[in-house]
Amino acid sequence: MDKKEVRHMRDYILLIDCIDEKGLIYKITKILYHFGLNIISNNEFVEKKTSHFFMRAEFTGNINEGEILTEMRKELPKETTLNLIKCRKKKIVIFATKEHHCLGDLLIKNEYQEMNAEILAVISNYPDLENLVSKFKIPFHYLSHRERTRESHENEIFDVLKAYDIDYIVLAKYMRILTPTFVSKYENKIINIHHSFLPAFIGLNPYKQAFDRGVKIIGATSHFVTEKLDSGAIIVQEIVSIDHKYSVEEMKLAGREVEIVALSKALKLLFEDRVFISNNKTIIFD
Amino acid sequence: MDKKEVRHMRDYILLIDCIDEKGLIYKITKILYHFGLNIISNNEFVEKKTSHFFMRAEFTGNINEGEILTEMRKELPKETTLNLIKCRKKKIVIFATKEHHCLGDLLIKNEYQEMNAEILAVISNYPDLENLVSKFKIPFHYLSHRERTRESHENEIFDVLKAYDIDYIVLAKYMRILTPTFVSKYENKIINIHHSFLPAFIGLNPYKQAFDRGVKIIGATSHFVTEKLDSGAIIVQEIVSIDHKYSVEEMKLAGREVEIVALSKALKLLFEDRVFISNNKTIIFD
Amino acid sequence: MDKKEVRHMRDYILLIDCIDEKGLIYKITKILYHFGLNIISNNEFVEKKTSHFFMRAEFTGNINEGEILTEMRKELPKETTLNLIKCRKKKIVIFATKEHHCLGDLLIKNEYQEMNAEILAVISNYPDLENLVSKFKIPFHYLSHRERTRESHENEIFDVLKAYDIDYIVLAKYMRILTPTFVSKYENKIINIHHSFLPAFIGLNPYKQAFDRGVKIIGATSHFVTEKLDSGAIIVQEIVSIDHKYSVEEMKLAGREVEIVALSKALKLLFEDRVFISNNKTIIFD
Amino acid sequence: MDKKEVRHMRDYILLIDCIDEKGLIYKITKILYHFGLNIISNNEFVEKKTSHFFMRAEFTGNINEGEILTEMRKELPKETTLNLIKCRKKKIVIFATKEHHCLGDLLIKNEYQEMNAEILAVISNYPDLENLVSKFKIPFHYLSHRERTRESHENEIFDVLKAYDIDYIVLAKYMRILTPTFVSKYENKIINIHHSFLPAFIGLNPYKQAFDRGVKIIGATSHFVTEKLDSGAIIVQEIVSIDHKYSVEEMKLAGREVEIVALSKALKLLFEDRVFISNNKTIIFD
Repeated sequence: MDKKEVRHMRDYILLIDCIDEKGLIYKITKILYHFGLNIISNNEFVEKKTSHFFMRAEFTGNINEGEILTEMRKELPKETTLNLIKCRKKKIVIFATKEHHCLGDLLIKNEYQEMNAEILAVISNYPDLENLVSKFKIPFHYLSHRERTRESHENEIFDVLKAYDIDYIVLAKYMRILTPTFVSKYENKIINIHHSFLPAFIGLNPYKQAFDRGVKIIGATSHFVTEKLDSGAIIVQEIVSIDHKYSVEEMKLAGREVEIVALSKALKLLFEDRVFISNNKTIIFD
Repeated sequence: MDKKEVRHMRDYILLIDCIDEKGLIYKITKILYHFGLNIISNNEFVEKKTSHFFMRAEFTGNINEGEILTEMRKELPKETTLNLIKCRKKKIVIFATKEHHCLGDLLIKNEYQEMNAEILAVISNYPDLENLVSKFKIPFHYLSHRERTRESHENEIFDVLKAYDIDYIVLAKYMRILTPTFVSKYENKIINIHHSFLPAFIGLNPYKQAFDRGVKIIGATSHFVTEKLDSGAIIVQEIVSIDHKYSVEEMKLAGREVEIVALSKALKLLFEDRVFISNNKTIIFD
Repeated sequence: MDKKEVRHMRDYILLIDCIDEKGLIYKITKILYHFGLNIISNNEFVEKKTSHFFMRAEFTGNINEGEILTEMRKELPKETTLNLIKCRKKKIVIFATKEHHCLGDLLIKNEYQEMNAEILAVISNYPDLENLVSKFKIPFHYLSHRERTRESHENEIFDVLKAYDIDYIVLAKYMRILTPTFVSKYENKIINIHHSFLPAFIGLNPYKQAFDRGVKIIGATSHFVTEKLDSGAIIVQEIVSIDHKYSVEEMKLAGREVEIVALSKALKLLFEDRVFISNNKTIIFD
Repeated sequence: MDKKEVRHMRDYILLIDCIDEKGLIYKITKILYHFGLNIISNNEFVEKKTSHFFMRAEFTGNINEGEILTEMRKELPKETTLNLIKCRKKKIVIFATKEHHCLGDLLIKNEYQEMNAEILAVISNYPDLENLVSKFKIPFHYLSHRERTRESHENEIFDVLKAYDIDYIVLAKYMRILTPTFVSKYENKIINIHHSFLPAFIGLNPYKQAFDRGVKIIGATSHFVTEKLDSGAIIVQEIVSIDHKYSVEEMKLAGREVEIVALSKALKLLFEDRVFISNNKTIIFD
């Protein structure tokens, strides 16, 4: 049973991002009302810095999608971004390397249909996780990065991805940096889990960095992937308390648990179309 | 600087509670739009169990309050509860007994105008806290409960209260149980801080109860006061981890810190008119 | 890599529980020193209420176990409980019913040897989880409780258990109440995960109870199983914040995540012999 | 009632920091036993990286301090740092600037003797907080930094400090950077509260930095002051969740509450002699 089913039986989600002006909610809800639609939940937010208005409405009813969008465009400001999404499971491909913990959690949630998404395949630059993935009858593509340029490796990945019609790529501890070329093909469609409380400890071996600094809390951050390393919009952050007794290895073990939770929570929000990106920050209607 | 000032320069808050039906948001925002008002933030929630619709809108503009309410009543369902609140600091009286920690926090916040409220007076059944209260030039009323019936004691309190025009009574560790008669005079206007994670450890000496049960987390609960002890709608709960090394006294000390935070957060929400009560539960638009 | 390996290469753990008296640490460490052993970590605690002294020491070295115990018994008070444990993976059997989430987490941790324990088998009163368990090549015993008395059902379970040499039974959402007869056979050896923040919401459907009470935080509690329902010594409690938007079903979903974490943390402590029980409370040296 | 009184009636605390070797606990507890002392609590830790042994023992009894130290020095490694502390309230001076929240909390705790410390005076580079401090009859020294060099300002401060016999200087939102010269005079004796989750957002205006980065959790860090800005050993970190609705100002307000808690918890540990520093990290026996 996924959250979508338990919260409401929504049919559509409408996402609107436009310049703020008086009367927007009125104009939008007027159209939905005139089409006889039933709003189940509605959220709005005005970002002061950019004077942008964001709205997410869930509703039930049978609609002519084109008609509604035409009406909306008439009423709303010129540059409005308008998304009318028919509710269905998202399709995702997971990238992994050698670590099993986030992948394992997602495979089990997928097996029991706990996510509003379906895992189509797993791609890895090492063969280690094939045994785990195959238990769940999910295709596993081992694409080694060795003796390849970064570009040729990504081209191989891209060739595999072409066979799948995907909504999102989930980096479940994928320990390779993606090139700007690759990232630009999937703008706002790649989600990463970083094993630190960003912006602390960007880059390699954050647990070693955390150990050396003697912090008392470590964390994990799920974020969108952009061209700049570990700098995309943050979706969810989770933390866990530690103390002087923790070795780097023990910090890694404790960190795994929050990595699982931070990624899982972020994906839940994403797969229910609850996340806007503005100004490299997320606006989340949960 | 209070939160009200920092978030927006809102003039009015509109609170609506009615039976759910199609088009409510449209009908409400239409009126606000036609009066030329600028909605700053807007929240809605439909409670499935009761089929009730709740809405809170903040807006700026000059209005004729009566006109707007008349228009609203025309459009909205019959039994609608409608509250149009002109933004201003709430007026409160604090009840305390001997413990200083929650009171101290509120006195300092009051001194620096950090709350969207003003403390008019403190009433206590012991004289102990007079010294603290008088530092801040707040009237302190010592009304001993000794050698009085509960009713006569409350009558004395009531006589003192009559001198003040109050929005809320805050029980900041007031260790007396109020009678239904008293509570009924201030329905949904009395807020308590209970020193446990309700509904665990209702009643006396919750830290002793927690110690005996060997729990690993203790908490505090701020809630509305109703006729039934510790059973009113919960506003905020806060927790703190403990371990086997904690004595009952140390649990009390650790608990104080979360009592302060739980009460302070609840009051912030309340004083910004963010809290609805339905079905003995709170709906909070934060 | 399990925590045992990463923290230290310990060979033995010594657990001592006795009446407190002057000089205990001195007497105990003297013996360890004279046997040439190297203490890696050492923890002591004196419980005031019972005047009991608890100590846990990890050490490395080759020992004649009998000799050390004889020396200890000479020096320590008469009624001392003394446990000299050679470090090795614990052996466990998991009981489950229909819910997969805690079981799934433990199966994955077992597959990657993340626990200081090995899952020997899973027993369930429903067949639903066989598919999941068989992926990991763990024996699955389906023992229906239908058309059986509680006693005869437990006898069937007991017959299956006899084939395994177990240290602990883990109830991973096993939705049957065990009889005192069964519990007494495995004193302090059965661990449960309860889906509430005990002692709040004992018994059936705690999420429904939490929903009705309107709490703002829900939790999970891992505890030892005793004859009295949900009343054994608490090992770990975890919480998650919720709000008015959560349905009972959504609370269940959010609760799952903390159930996984609370059980997993408790087992880690248990499998490293870090948990004493005294007076129906746990003393944990982490 | 302070924690010291509620946990135990300890008379002395012994702190030992030396190179690790076999038998240290035995050798130390032997001496305490032979002097007839009663150990109330005992903690040890071996830091692997530096091969250092740390121990803290609380005990009761009448002692000849010199005798015990002489015995200890005979048995322990050459470079041992040995501290035998007679339990008493610490004496502190608070530095502040304009913000009242941490100072207010400490003044109230001081008024009710909730800390194992006594505030001797408050020094500020602005006059704003005099009104608050004077309510509690604590000397307030206004020492403006204007039209002075950093050195001459610190010399004035130093002259005021000379009148007090202090254990610690507490920077309760003191918004000036202290020179290495000043810091070196009070090595490991100055504690700061930084308004971010270090090492994220070092330096100026961390809430603005956090806002711009779009983090979902903000924090506060109490740490020792060293010559390098915001880089001393961390004692306590606290966090609070935020979302896209928070302005910089609202983040400041939310941050205040965790700043109060982080500083208060750190001071409690410090004033009970529970904090070792090693390698620019803290080892805390709580």
